[in-house]
Amino acid sequence: MKGLFVTFEGGEGAGKSSILKAIGEQLREEGYPVLETREPGGIRIAEKIREVILTPSHTEMDGRTEALLYAAARRQHLVEKVIPALQAGKVVLCDRFIDSSLAYQGVARDLGLEEVYKINQFAIEDCMPDLTLLFDITPEEGLKRIADNKGREQNRLDLENIDFHVKVHEAYHDLAEKYKERIRVITAGQPFQEVKRDAYQVLKESLPS
Amino acid sequence: MKGLFVTFEGGEGAGKSSILKAIGEQLREEGYPVLETREPGGIRIAEKIREVILTPSHTEMDGRTEALLYAAARRQHLVEKVIPALQAGKVVLCDRFIDSSLAYQGVARDLGLEEVYKINQFAIEDCMPDLTLLFDITPEEGLKRIADNKGREQNRLDLENIDFHVKVHEAYHDLAEKYKERIRVITAGQPFQEVKRDAYQVLKESLPS
Repeated sequence: MKGLFVTFEGGEGAGKSSILKAIGEQLREEGYPVLETREPGGIRIAEKIREVILTPSHTEMDGRTEALLYAAARRQHLVEKVIPALQAGKVVLCDRFIDSSLAYQGVARDLGLEEVYKINQFAIEDCMPDLTLLFDITPEEGLKRIADNKGREQNRLDLENIDFHVKVHEAYHDLAEKYKERIRVITAGQPFQEVKRDAYQVLKESLPS
Repeated sequence: MKGLFVTFEGGEGAGKSSILKAIGEQLREEGYPVLETREPGGIRIAEKIREVILTPSHTEMDGRTEALLYAAARRQHLVEKVIPALQAGKVVLCDRFIDSSLAYQGVARDLGLEEVYKINQFAIEDCMPDLTLLFDITPEEGLKRIADNKGREQNRLDLENIDFHVKVHEAYHDLAEKYKERIRVITAGQPFQEVKRDAYQVLKESLPS
């Protein structure tokens, strides 16, 4: 593959989606071919799967069923959208990927990190991210940002209690420790321009100049 | 768990579904509490997942996505229907289960037996079948039976070429070899009553008298 596969990770309110957009714009201005995406990303089958996951009346959904469905949607999005872009030499910026499943389902929902890794490995095969930017913010600060942002619609995860978000935060830290070569931590509690600058610098090191 | 979990496996035209029904009736007459089922088995979320798999226009469906979706539907059917029945002490007769995925996806579709086993193990946890009846018939004979049975609607798998069914047949044999304690082979090329008698005898050995 000729492109570069970069994933953006972090808890709620870390600002990763806005930074992703800003960095995408900057790279494009510099002449890099860029794909910005997030699952299910308009991929028909992945959208259908996500619909099953998010149907609010599906309260009987088992945690393992949900994790398998996320992995299935991930696979289809990867095959149809990410891999072709990488083959075309693009820089792919993907908002959440395997580490979200590991932190949220594996640790915070208590399914087990190794277990959730196994099914995701089946979905991803050898297409792991080249680089993962982990936007680090305390759960308290992240949730405060969300509450202050009136324009943002709250989702199911925003409403979990603080303990859940603390678990996610710790899980991300453990992952950064475990996958040192792939995951780089960005201090997300700074002003937007500084977070963007830090993320950009780390990403730039991985780009062909 | 107090019940007994029995799965019925085999290639197309092996007659396992008719035998399952006949055995279910006989056990019920003898006073055993019985649940006859097959995935997705009326379980709302599993039905929705199966819909995604079987939508004919979804020709872009990746083989690994499909395998993950089957595992997801399996999990939900297991949790909502099979496990409660086992806990209530029932004999659960399930038409196809993990071995179908191993033979069809793992081997015939070439995703790899160990790989497909991994995601199914995630779905099933420790709820493996107590007994699996493998209805063994040559692919030629099985396909001939289907062709002769005008009342039976042909499905997508019936239309695969003979090589595919030969692979499935060999895969089932290898599984029977590998999981000797769990899988018992029934000669399905005999007349119906004899197949039923053989299957019943094997099952009876596992039942509390």
